[in-house]
Amino acid sequence: MPRVGVLPAGALGTIADVPGVTVGHCTLADGPIQTGVTVVRAHRDDPYRHKVPAAASVINGFGKSIGLVQVEELGVLETPIALTNTFGVAAVAQAQIRAAIASNPQIGREWSTVNPLVFECNDGYLNDIPALAIEESHYAQAFDTAVVEFERGSVGAGRGMSCFDLKGGIGSASRVANVTGKDFTVGALVLANFGRLPMLTIDGMPVGRELHRRKQSATTAKPEQGSIIMIVATDAPLDSRQLKRLSMRAAAGLARTGSVYGHGSGDIALAFSTAWTVPHEGDFVATPPLLSDARLDPLFQACADSVEQAILDALCLATSVTGRDAHTRLSLREAAPDLEQLLKRHIA
Amino acid sequence: MPRVGVLPAGALGTIADVPGVTVGHCTLADGPIQTGVTVVRAHRDDPYRHKVPAAASVINGFGKSIGLVQVEELGVLETPIALTNTFGVAAVAQAQIRAAIASNPQIGREWSTVNPLVFECNDGYLNDIPALAIEESHYAQAFDTAVVEFERGSVGAGRGMSCFDLKGGIGSASRVANVTGKDFTVGALVLANFGRLPMLTIDGMPVGRELHRRKQSATTAKPEQGSIIMIVATDAPLDSRQLKRLSMRAAAGLARTGSVYGHGSGDIALAFSTAWTVPHEGDFVATPPLLSDARLDPLFQACADSVEQAILDALCLATSVTGRDAHTRLSLREAAPDLEQLLKRHIA
Amino acid sequence: MPRVGVLPAGALGTIADVPGVTVGHCTLADGPIQTGVTVVRAHRDDPYRHKVPAAASVINGFGKSIGLVQVEELGVLETPIALTNTFGVAAVAQAQIRAAIASNPQIGREWSTVNPLVFECNDGYLNDIPALAIEESHYAQAFDTAVVEFERGSVGAGRGMSCFDLKGGIGSASRVANVTGKDFTVGALVLANFGRLPMLTIDGMPVGRELHRRKQSATTAKPEQGSIIMIVATDAPLDSRQLKRLSMRAAAGLARTGSVYGHGSGDIALAFSTAWTVPHEGDFVATPPLLSDARLDPLFQACADSVEQAILDALCLATSVTGRDAHTRLSLREAAPDLEQLLKRHIA
Amino acid sequence: MPRVGVLPAGALGTIADVPGVTVGHCTLADGPIQTGVTVVRAHRDDPYRHKVPAAASVINGFGKSIGLVQVEELGVLETPIALTNTFGVAAVAQAQIRAAIASNPQIGREWSTVNPLVFECNDGYLNDIPALAIEESHYAQAFDTAVVEFERGSVGAGRGMSCFDLKGGIGSASRVANVTGKDFTVGALVLANFGRLPMLTIDGMPVGRELHRRKQSATTAKPEQGSIIMIVATDAPLDSRQLKRLSMRAAAGLARTGSVYGHGSGDIALAFSTAWTVPHEGDFVATPPLLSDARLDPLFQACADSVEQAILDALCLATSVTGRDAHTRLSLREAAPDLEQLLKRHIA
Repeated sequence: MPRVGVLPAGALGTIADVPGVTVGHCTLADGPIQTGVTVVRAHRDDPYRHKVPAAASVINGFGKSIGLVQVEELGVLETPIALTNTFGVAAVAQAQIRAAIASNPQIGREWSTVNPLVFECNDGYLNDIPALAIEESHYAQAFDTAVVEFERGSVGAGRGMSCFDLKGGIGSASRVANVTGKDFTVGALVLANFGRLPMLTIDGMPVGRELHRRKQSATTAKPEQGSIIMIVATDAPLDSRQLKRLSMRAAAGLARTGSVYGHGSGDIALAFSTAWTVPHEGDFVATPPLLSDARLDPLFQACADSVEQAILDALCLATSVTGRDAHTRLSLREAAPDLEQLLKRHIA
Repeated sequence: MPRVGVLPAGALGTIADVPGVTVGHCTLADGPIQTGVTVVRAHRDDPYRHKVPAAASVINGFGKSIGLVQVEELGVLETPIALTNTFGVAAVAQAQIRAAIASNPQIGREWSTVNPLVFECNDGYLNDIPALAIEESHYAQAFDTAVVEFERGSVGAGRGMSCFDLKGGIGSASRVANVTGKDFTVGALVLANFGRLPMLTIDGMPVGRELHRRKQSATTAKPEQGSIIMIVATDAPLDSRQLKRLSMRAAAGLARTGSVYGHGSGDIALAFSTAWTVPHEGDFVATPPLLSDARLDPLFQACADSVEQAILDALCLATSVTGRDAHTRLSLREAAPDLEQLLKRHIA
Repeated sequence: MPRVGVLPAGALGTIADVPGVTVGHCTLADGPIQTGVTVVRAHRDDPYRHKVPAAASVINGFGKSIGLVQVEELGVLETPIALTNTFGVAAVAQAQIRAAIASNPQIGREWSTVNPLVFECNDGYLNDIPALAIEESHYAQAFDTAVVEFERGSVGAGRGMSCFDLKGGIGSASRVANVTGKDFTVGALVLANFGRLPMLTIDGMPVGRELHRRKQSATTAKPEQGSIIMIVATDAPLDSRQLKRLSMRAAAGLARTGSVYGHGSGDIALAFSTAWTVPHEGDFVATPPLLSDARLDPLFQACADSVEQAILDALCLATSVTGRDAHTRLSLREAAPDLEQLLKRHIA
Repeated sequence: MPRVGVLPAGALGTIADVPGVTVGHCTLADGPIQTGVTVVRAHRDDPYRHKVPAAASVINGFGKSIGLVQVEELGVLETPIALTNTFGVAAVAQAQIRAAIASNPQIGREWSTVNPLVFECNDGYLNDIPALAIEESHYAQAFDTAVVEFERGSVGAGRGMSCFDLKGGIGSASRVANVTGKDFTVGALVLANFGRLPMLTIDGMPVGRELHRRKQSATTAKPEQGSIIMIVATDAPLDSRQLKRLSMRAAAGLARTGSVYGHGSGDIALAFSTAWTVPHEGDFVATPPLLSDARLDPLFQACADSVEQAILDALCLATSVTGRDAHTRLSLREAAPDLEQLLKRHIA
């Protein structure tokens, strides 16, 4: 798989290159049930007492997430970020609430309530989504296994996802951007579940068009019912307004893979910074010196490149899966054994 | 209780004056559990196959609703509107999904998924909210009992709510506005759970200031942890953009009761029209002739007046409740037996 | 005129109670030309090199301002705030650009361009607005006369404005809010040009209804073509996201005077903080410790109260004006000589 | 220049393939003055009396347009769309107001005011922008010359624009999308003034990276100070909410050319439909049957492809220009005589 752009990647080449970030999965793979939960933690501390600054861009709002209203108003996260299938949002949100109360019994009593944050894609092609297989306990399993060196591909929330009519799932990537002499890392983790095969574009090459020609498929008129969730982390000191700007650049990385943000696709990007936190209690919030907006272009580039690379990562690492009603999604590698040949071009 | 403004009310004086609208409750009142679910139905047909146009205004986004992202993008409702406590959102959303699938087994298979829509307020002062008492079945109980002549006050989602340090809950009102010779009805239903006593203003009179003086209470520095959900229905032919404009006028009605949209208050207004529906399938959507934007002022007035009146209705009809840890909220009538005297003034 | 609410006012009782803020006017009053320009300066330094944090809420967007797109994106002001009539925006914006270039010749060359910020209301009832009387030089005249003890009423941009079918114009007020032991000032300046007489509400009393009864006027069906611009200043240390929250509370103050945010009314609130500035150049932006969002309620109250008071201030200080085609607007005092009597009530 | 995507273009291959749309220019090219005005007309009728539905997406709001606040609220255009340089907005807006009054003397008197709509980019690299060369009369010259077969390249507002460190300017393209058996046209016109050379991507190929290598240029760290305005027209029957969705897809076309929506770039897309109009007067607005949202994907694809193609069109047709201080921008053809060779690749 080509590495897109010219910025260097971090050591791991994943969102975990942003110090403190960890990712865990709970994967359900049993016949018609092909689904799961993925959790992204911004740091190892209690997320309610140490809230990270954050913001989101809703690129296309065909989506059933919970939690964005309050993120928009207050600009912080209060829980880990959870990803699952469309009909699993409620169970996972309930689990987040229960976990927050367990850690902070003041919640709902002396303190205010807690804002769960769960994103979703529709994995109904492979997964028997009306079976509502996601249970509260799956969230804890994903949370408890969060590590730096996490799996990608057909795992966690990505287990049943489709992307460009191929197997999609969890992908991740990172880029290091130099801003006025200092290196900052931007990492992306995507739950990729969007697109029709003819649109697939890899590093600028219309690979999907060629693969579609070979299949002589007549199925392309089917509209998208997918989605993509794009989580962007950075160690650069940004506030919520700036993180909203950063999150919007996920739309550029997404577009480069062939997406036009389909009607039925919930395309949502959420960005957070690990450079500082907002304590739950206290009269004042001390922020570090924030990057000037006029210096953000390298981070914008890193965001777009990371998201594009993370989508390719998902396509590359996802293994073929057969789910409900014998529905099968092939991995990109199986669908395009000659991928390297297809990507050849005059200039690089 | 005074009737605010100069516009006439509908026959029932509730949101059900908008033809087709019904409301149902499930009330839990057992010791420390004082909570419930309220459901507003826009019509008697299947809400997924006949989607009503709708839009929302987030006046203050300290709130944990589910469903607004998609309402903003597509401008329609796909389920009844559900109200409950903050930690009941997940169970009720799950119930909405299950109900939609039961009626339309194509959901999540041939068809897309369904967008649940659940709003919440924090009833934790009276209700043992960390007990997570709301279960999926409570949604069906509320839905099944939806009627035109519904109860208000300390019922349904309003059971455990507080408003201006008094007992809050469910209130409703309506106004009839004449637009270019035709009468249109605007109805409001609120879940009122906001405000501190000194702020309470009734038909312009600073009643709360007086009641607070009498109590010599030192508790007023406590910040709001409440919220208000304002559901606005109309039979006027409006589209989603216009309904967003209409929903914003709920902020005016809310302000007249003394609210300044407190930091910890999720103040959200949702407006829908019953004048037409968007079918789930079909290539084109036929709309009736829509009201010109330049003719909307009477409806804006009706919205603000209905919301103000609905809040007063909640205060007036809610009965005193004692909940967890012997916490008690007095009804307005008990707190201010001389209310009529307080409202006296030179002009009316 | 009653003083609304319970918070104390600042020493001057105007927006200039926020240290550094000054206001200047240029008034044109010559037969059918009854209009002008008002300038609000956040500080005495160059506004381009020392940008104040700011944000706006568009409560109803029937308005022709210039500059809000960039304020929304970057969260700072680059010029003084200018107010004028609807057809004067272009001339004033041009003047702002010219003034910025004069002070900073790098603009448009080594540096980027500058974002003018001009708000407007339609003073066409009194002023011959199609005559396009505002010229670039009027901006400089307003700017040059900015002082702490500025005039209010039928001056500057307020010269030709109408409010509740009475004479409107420039009003201002302030409130001091104690936040965790420290006093912060919130000041408002409004350009009041909205509302029909029957809606007028003064400190909760339906004064307009009574005045309308007396006139037996049949003109009330005419829709609003007015607007209100609400400028909110504070010395509290807030960032752009928080200032957006603060600005939204102007909607509460506006509603208390009887407005329902009419269709044809451009109701826009802009809030800025003088507690810190963003330098035009530099890699990092140092912010002071910001107030916690959970401590903002007193400021929200101060904002709503200041805006309500500022509108009453405009009504109280505006003198009667006769303009084009013998159109006349009476001052509130002339229209309601018995105002004090009308405001009598049982409780205060 | 390659034709991107697989959808067919319209007969002219410009925005004028949407029936009724015409474009006119006024070009100033005299030594250090290299600038102009471009006008897009949606139809030949009076735009104030027959308002077209419209909406905009602000992808990055570093921009000084006038008119978007009201477009967002009311969803219609009241004037032709004008494009010019950053410091020409005021003069052009004034000219639009004057022209609207000339056609409709009721404006500002019996009728409300008019909402000018002017977009801008900063052409300061080639043009002596602080000279404020744009005058009101230039708008009329552009308006009066609006035709179907209009010029593109270094003309009108595009005269002084730069794009990827090459000569930018006006570009246009169209695509025909089949929606449920009917053909609809989507056309784009761009004012392209964004990007640094290394980012330039043509039909997926990193052409800019190669050109940059050849130049051994050390200038690439300079941030963007450009912008792009993307006007999207369609004859498909859409309402304002749907046009907002359509306009957002311009972000996908823009991203494919290498943009990551730079900090200093005002990236704004405006979409309008010619399928119906909103009359200035009247109680009701009759809309034709609107396309179902679920059928919009082909139009989204057409929008993204048209915008990408229009940017390439601008690069291809813009001729080299030398402006102020001997600043020169080479045309793409001069900078890359071997462009066809660079675009060679294994698959198409």
